[in-house]
Amino acid sequence: MNTNVQGIPGDKMHAQIDSPIMDYLHDLRDRFAGLDAGDIADYIPELAKASSGSFGISMATTEGHVYEVGESHHEFTIQSISKPFVYGLALEDNGRADVLGKIGVEPTGEAFNSISLDPHTGQPANPMINAGAITAAGMVMGHDNDKKINRVMDMLSAYAGRPLSLDEGVYLSESQTGHRNRAIGYMLRNFNILEEDPAATLELYFKQCSVSVSCRDLAIMGATLANAGINPLTQERAIRGEYVESVLSVMGSCGMYDYAGEWIYKVGMPAKSGVAGGIVAVLPGKLGIGVFSPPLDKRGNSVRGIEVCNRISMDFNLHMFNVVQPGKSVIRSAYDGSHISSKHLRKAGDRARLQQEGQRIRVYEIQGDLNFSTTEVIVNEIVSRSSGADYFIVDLKRVLTLDQSACRLFYQLLLKLADTDKQLLFTNCDTWPELGKYMRRRLKVNDRASWQSFEDDYALEYCENRILNNAEVAAVTMPLDSFELFDGLSADEIEVISGRLKKQAYRQGETIIKQGEPASQLYLLAQGQVSINITLPGGKIKRLATLSPGLVFGEMAWIERSERSAAVTVDADALCYKLDIADFDAMMADHGAVKVKLLENLLRLFSRNLRKANTEIGVLS
Amino acid sequence: MNTNVQGIPGDKMHAQIDSPIMDYLHDLRDRFAGLDAGDIADYIPELAKASSGSFGISMATTEGHVYEVGESHHEFTIQSISKPFVYGLALEDNGRADVLGKIGVEPTGEAFNSISLDPHTGQPANPMINAGAITAAGMVMGHDNDKKINRVMDMLSAYAGRPLSLDEGVYLSESQTGHRNRAIGYMLRNFNILEEDPAATLELYFKQCSVSVSCRDLAIMGATLANAGINPLTQERAIRGEYVESVLSVMGSCGMYDYAGEWIYKVGMPAKSGVAGGIVAVLPGKLGIGVFSPPLDKRGNSVRGIEVCNRISMDFNLHMFNVVQPGKSVIRSAYDGSHISSKHLRKAGDRARLQQEGQRIRVYEIQGDLNFSTTEVIVNEIVSRSSGADYFIVDLKRVLTLDQSACRLFYQLLLKLADTDKQLLFTNCDTWPELGKYMRRRLKVNDRASWQSFEDDYALEYCENRILNNAEVAAVTMPLDSFELFDGLSADEIEVISGRLKKQAYRQGETIIKQGEPASQLYLLAQGQVSINITLPGGKIKRLATLSPGLVFGEMAWIERSERSAAVTVDADALCYKLDIADFDAMMADHGAVKVKLLENLLRLFSRNLRKANTEIGVLS
Repeated sequence: MNTNVQGIPGDKMHAQIDSPIMDYLHDLRDRFAGLDAGDIADYIPELAKASSGSFGISMATTEGHVYEVGESHHEFTIQSISKPFVYGLALEDNGRADVLGKIGVEPTGEAFNSISLDPHTGQPANPMINAGAITAAGMVMGHDNDKKINRVMDMLSAYAGRPLSLDEGVYLSESQTGHRNRAIGYMLRNFNILEEDPAATLELYFKQCSVSVSCRDLAIMGATLANAGINPLTQERAIRGEYVESVLSVMGSCGMYDYAGEWIYKVGMPAKSGVAGGIVAVLPGKLGIGVFSPPLDKRGNSVRGIEVCNRISMDFNLHMFNVVQPGKSVIRSAYDGSHISSKHLRKAGDRARLQQEGQRIRVYEIQGDLNFSTTEVIVNEIVSRSSGADYFIVDLKRVLTLDQSACRLFYQLLLKLADTDKQLLFTNCDTWPELGKYMRRRLKVNDRASWQSFEDDYALEYCENRILNNAEVAAVTMPLDSFELFDGLSADEIEVISGRLKKQAYRQGETIIKQGEPASQLYLLAQGQVSINITLPGGKIKRLATLSPGLVFGEMAWIERSERSAAVTVDADALCYKLDIADFDAMMADHGAVKVKLLENLLRLFSRNLRKANTEIGVLS
Repeated sequence: MNTNVQGIPGDKMHAQIDSPIMDYLHDLRDRFAGLDAGDIADYIPELAKASSGSFGISMATTEGHVYEVGESHHEFTIQSISKPFVYGLALEDNGRADVLGKIGVEPTGEAFNSISLDPHTGQPANPMINAGAITAAGMVMGHDNDKKINRVMDMLSAYAGRPLSLDEGVYLSESQTGHRNRAIGYMLRNFNILEEDPAATLELYFKQCSVSVSCRDLAIMGATLANAGINPLTQERAIRGEYVESVLSVMGSCGMYDYAGEWIYKVGMPAKSGVAGGIVAVLPGKLGIGVFSPPLDKRGNSVRGIEVCNRISMDFNLHMFNVVQPGKSVIRSAYDGSHISSKHLRKAGDRARLQQEGQRIRVYEIQGDLNFSTTEVIVNEIVSRSSGADYFIVDLKRVLTLDQSACRLFYQLLLKLADTDKQLLFTNCDTWPELGKYMRRRLKVNDRASWQSFEDDYALEYCENRILNNAEVAAVTMPLDSFELFDGLSADEIEVISGRLKKQAYRQGETIIKQGEPASQLYLLAQGQVSINITLPGGKIKRLATLSPGLVFGEMAWIERSERSAAVTVDADALCYKLDIADFDAMMADHGAVKVKLLENLLRLFSRNLRKANTEIGVLS
C-alpha cells in the first residue's frame, strides 16, 4: 500500500495523525449532544444561569495523557464532587479509625438531600451525603478556618495539577440559602459529632463546594486517584496512597446518591456527581473521566454525564468486575541447569557434569504482575518440585508490578526451602528493591545469607559452582595439549605453535583487552579466570562470558582484524599464552598444515558458540 | 548452605515441602478459633444444632489450586449465599433488561430481614434481600417446579464442581416456619412482580437455601465467579461470562446486608454471607474464599468469617481498589529497522540500504495486559511517531491478556494510518484470534488487506522487502567472484575452487538439506531464495534464516562434520554450487594457500553471524 511514496502528497504523508481516541470522544459528544432530558439545578440563581447545551468530556490516563472534547475548559462549581476529596484529607489528618468513629460508610439508598443520621448516635451514614461531608470538613486540621480553607484549596489544586479558585458568587449564594445544611450542622453539633461551632465548618463546606473546576480538571483529579494519589501530570502527591482505597470505596458504594447500586451495576467505576453538572469517574490503576453537562435527572446526576460514562464503560470494557481470561501463565518459561548454562564457559569435564546434574537447578522466568494469586502459582510450582531439585532461581526481569503479598509469599517459601537446605535465589530484581528490604527486615541475623539476589545469569553460575564444588579457582596451569584449540594436533605440531606463543601473567582486576583497541593477539587462558564484558550505552557493564583455563579469547576481532568489541578483565590471577596475528600469518610458509588445523579448530569453536547463542535466542524468544 | 548434601537426612532432603499458604491458613485459624463472640442462628432447630466451635477456611484460585484448613469438608446449608447464584441463573434465563425490570440493584442500608419493596411498584430493592431473591427464584425457567429445582441444583453443582444435595431436614423446617417469606411472596404476587402462584416459587426458594455445601465448595464457587464463570477445577461453565460482572456487582453493593459498605471499605471484595455461618468472597480474576463458622453478629454475618476475610485481604493486599504502581511500561522495547534486521540475510548493498532507511520501520514489543489504558499508551506512542515512519509493527508475543477494547483501539489506529498510506502490522498474535476476527469483521472488503498478521520476524522482513522494493526474487545468477566467501581471492584462485564445485538447480518447495542427515556439502546460493528451518519439539517449524544469492549455507555441520541441525528448503527456484568436504580436504596438497583463505573467510562469516546473534540476545533479554 505504501511502495509508491512519491504519489502521496507530502503534507498528508508526513503529518502526525490524530488519535483515534479523540475521534471516539468527538463521536460520543455528537451522539449525546442532542439528548435534552433533565433540568438545571435552580436552588440558587448562580447555578440556574448554566447553559443546558454546555457539554464537555475529558479522559486522563495514569500515564498523564489527557483527551478532551467540547466545553472541556468551561469552569463550573465542583459541588458534591468535593466530598470524596475532603474525606480523603480528613483521613490523612485523623487516621482511619477516628474518621470511621464519626462517619459511617454504609449506603443509604436514599435521595441526595436526605439527612440520614443514626437515630441513636447521630453518626452520618456515609461521607457522600451532606451530613457526612460536613462532618468530614469539620475534621480538616488547621489553626483557624482560613488555614483549613487554604489546605482544602491546596489539596484540590494538587489533584487538578493547577491552582483552583473559588467562585465567590456561588459561595455567597450557597451560604445565604444553605438553611438545610445549617440545620444538619447544628444537629451534628447536638450529637457532638461536630465538636466545635458549626458556623465555621459550614463556611468551609460551602467554600469547598464553590471551587471552580473544568471537566478536564475532574478527569485529572480522577486519574490522580487512579494513580494511587500521585498526579500523573505534575507527579505531585495529592493524598497518601494508603487512603486512596478508602476514598474509592465510598465513591463506589455511595458516590451516586440513590443511583449508586445501578451505577456500579452498569458503569462499574467508583464515581461522584455534583449538582452543577459534573461527574468524575475513576478506573483504579488506569484512568479518570470528567464530564460536564448541567441538566440533571431527578436523582441529581448529570443526564448526559451518566450516558457518556455508561457508553465509555461498555465500549472499552471498563467495568471493574469485567474479568479478562489470561492467555498466558505468569511462568513464562521454566528450565533446568542441564539445558541452559551460565555465561561461565567451562572445560569439557565440567560441561559433562553439569549436563548430568544440572536438573538440581530449576530456573523460572516470570512475567506480568506479581500479586497474591500470581505468586501463588509460582510458589505452588516450586513446592511441587521441591523434592527433585536443590536450587530454585526466580527471574524477575519481565515482572511489571510486584506487591507486598508477593514479598510475603516469597519470604515464606524461602524459609520453608531453607529448612530442607534448599535455596531460593532471585535474579534481576533491581526494579523491586522492596523485595530485598522485606526479606532483610524479617530474616534473623543468622539467616540473612539465605536472601541472595543476582543480576542476569550470575545466580545460575553460582548454582553451577556449588554443584561443581569449584567456587575456588584452581592454581594449576593447564598444559597446552589440553586446549581444545589443539585437538588433533601432534606433539610436534603443538611444539611449532608453542614456539610462537608469548606467556604473560595478569593480576586480579587487571584489564587484558580494552574495548575499542585494535586486535593483534589471540589469547589462550592457561590459569585463573577472566570475564568478557561490554559497556552498554547507559554505562552499565554487561558480562558476555566468563572463561576457565583451557579456553581461548579475543578470537573474533583477531580473525576479523577489527577493533575489540568487548573488554576482558581478570577475575582471578591469570596466566595467558598470546599468539600474534603476524606470527600466525607467517606460519603458512613452513607450517601450512598446522595453520589449517588451527583454523578448522577455531571454526569448530565458533560453530559451538553460535549454536549456544542460537539456543539462547530460542529460549529467550 | 547446601554444599554438604550428605549431612541432611534423606527423607527431609527429598520430601516435598508444605506450601507456605497452608502454614498461613493454619495460623489464621488458630488465631481466630478463640474468638467467641456471636450467636448461632436459632430460628429453626436444625440451625441451632450447629457447633459454635466448627471453623473451616478454604481458598481456591482461578488456576484451580485449593487450600483448606479446619472443618473445610463439614457440610452446612448454603442459605442466603444461594441468592447471587440464582440471580445469575435468572439473568441467563431472562436477560438483563427483564430482570432489572423486576428487581432493583440499590443497596438499602437496612437489616437482612427487611422487606424493602418500592411502595409504588412493589419492586424489591435488590436481589440480596429475601424479596429480591424470591423474585429471582420465580424467574428461573422450567416446565414445572421439579425441573426448576433440578436446574438450580445443577447450576450450584457446576459452580462447586461436584453434585450437591439437599438437607431435607432444614428444608422442611424452613418451609414450616417461613411465614415472613410467605408474606413477602404474596406481597410480590399482589404487585404482579411474581406472576404465578407464589407457593411453588417459595418452595423453590426454601430448597435453594437448604442445599448442603462445605466452605471448600464455597471457595470453589467463588473461584468460578472469579474465573469469568468457568469452574477452574472441572473447566465446566457455570454461568455465561457476560453475567458474571452483574452478579459480582450486586454482591459488591448489597452482599453483606447493612454491613455491605463497611465490608467493601475494609475487605474490598464482592461477597455474600449466609445465616448458617458461611461466607463466600471473590477477588475477580484471582480467587475465591470460603469460610464456615456458625456464630453470627447482629447483622447476620459470621463473626469469625468477617475477621478471616478482613485479615486475608490485609495480609495479601486483596482490596479491589488497592492499586499497585506499574514498575515497567507496556512497551517492553521499541526499535527501528536500522538497528535490527529480519532473519532474511541480505547481500552487502541491501544491508547498507536498510541501515540507511530502516528507521521507516518501527517495531514495538508489547508486554503484559492489553486493555483500554495500556493500549492507549501504544496508540499514543504510534500517533506521536506517525510523521516519522511508514511501517509500525506491534509484537504481541509477550502479551498476557487482550480485551475487546484493545481490538477496538488497534482497529481505529489501523484505519487512521491507512488514511495516510502507512501500515500497522501485527506479529505473534496466534494466541489472540479475536483480534483478527475483530478486524476482518469490520474492515470493508476493499480494506481487508490492511489487516496483516505475521509470525516471528516475517513482518519485519515484509517491511524490509517493501523498502528494498524486491519482493520479487531476481532471476539472475550471482557470479562466483561476488560471493563474500571468495573475498580476497584472485581469479586464478577462484578458478581452483570453481573446478571442485558441482552445480545443481532446485525447484520451489524442494528440500535441499534434511534435519538429522550427515553433512558432506557446503552450499553456495547463486540464484533464488532458500530458508533454514528447524522443527520444534511440538512439531512447529521455526525459521532460523532466509538467504539471498551470494550467501553460503550448510557450513556449520560441514565444518563440525556432524549431523545437520536444521533443514533447508527452497522458497524460490534456486541454483546452488556444492563443495564436497572430501574435495576441500584434498585441496591442501596442491592449494594450501587457497584453502587457508577460504577458512579465514568462513571464520569471518561465522564471526559476523555470532555478532548478529549476540546483538539479538542483547535486544531480547
